[in-house]
Amino acid sequence: MQKSLSVSEYSSILLENAVNEFSRLPGIGKKTALRLALHLLREDAHHAQALAQAITQMRDNILLCEKCYNISDTKLCGICSNPKRDENTLCVVADLRDVLAIERTSTFNGLYHVLGGVISPVEGISPSDLHLQALVDRTQKESFNEIILALPATIEGDTTNYFIFKQLSAFKGKITSISKGIAIGDALEFADEITLSRSILNRTPFTAL
Amino acid sequence: MQKSLSVSEYSSILLENAVNEFSRLPGIGKKTALRLALHLLREDAHHAQALAQAITQMRDNILLCEKCYNISDTKLCGICSNPKRDENTLCVVADLRDVLAIERTSTFNGLYHVLGGVISPVEGISPSDLHLQALVDRTQKESFNEIILALPATIEGDTTNYFIFKQLSAFKGKITSISKGIAIGDALEFADEITLSRSILNRTPFTAL
Repeated sequence: MQKSLSVSEYSSILLENAVNEFSRLPGIGKKTALRLALHLLREDAHHAQALAQAITQMRDNILLCEKCYNISDTKLCGICSNPKRDENTLCVVADLRDVLAIERTSTFNGLYHVLGGVISPVEGISPSDLHLQALVDRTQKESFNEIILALPATIEGDTTNYFIFKQLSAFKGKITSISKGIAIGDALEFADEITLSRSILNRTPFTAL
Repeated sequence: MQKSLSVSEYSSILLENAVNEFSRLPGIGKKTALRLALHLLREDAHHAQALAQAITQMRDNILLCEKCYNISDTKLCGICSNPKRDENTLCVVADLRDVLAIERTSTFNGLYHVLGGVISPVEGISPSDLHLQALVDRTQKESFNEIILALPATIEGDTTNYFIFKQLSAFKGKITSISKGIAIGDALEFADEITLSRSILNRTPFTAL
């Protein structure tokens, strides 16, 4: 009964540190952070080691692809360096999660260009914060036939689409945009009005599959 | 365009490792894990370092208090080693989160005993998996006047309460249990039937505050 320091709320500074660090992550509050830390304490020690190591190694060694700004372990990402990809089609996305999402559909075999966001005056993201100049450069150096704009269906996405469209005035190929409308499997009554009105305005010729 | 390895789904093995490790944590799926990993990539590198270090240090150095089995940075936890705590009252809880919860209320100034769970045949937790013998030993060595059973208000909690009560037959002091009933601020109509019937059966003399 020697010490009577004012002890941390968690009766352990070590636990408190871990909880604090976990709770800096997005969507993780103090309660969840505590649950995660206690889970690591209950589990075998190598789980905690593996997590810590994976975090450190990722943060220290990961790169952005020199060409498309997708994340990569090598200078050129696996998509840019894959000779089987169609080098004539470029898909412009806001975020690297969008690359993952599109890759998961297996319907696109071209290359990507990751902007790193969309133009948003509200959030203080201007064109110069994005990999837009690099996009323009690529369209001059590489031989694309088509550039697909696959940005979010938001005002910011539309603004960025328009900005890119203007920037690419010298581009000779097609510039297309992903279609917007009601989601597959959705009933019309549950679609919001703007989506529904867009999907009527942008109706396409019917083709029997 | 040299390499065309089959690349990880995340276009980076480093990212994939981090996602996999995060998604082993309870309540964290692949999508959330990806969000966490990408957050660490976007943020300053020292955030990722701090998280990794906090995890490692916690896992490597944290102890269980020799007396009460609360987690601790030292052999005796801050509560057991605090001479200002009332050494005559012992509160038996299932989990160290319960210690935190009770400490937050500032209504208890005694000592704790953390069982590490409750007896649960369904989950295969038998009395020998819990710090029950240590509890019996403590009641013989230390000078408690009262032992408060603060286990969960579940069948398993009740079973464990009963088991402890039997084990402590030699204990001369009071054995009490936290009260159960409708939560403060709750309307009766929203309380479940079992809670409401318990709170009628266990009614207490009215005292004007």
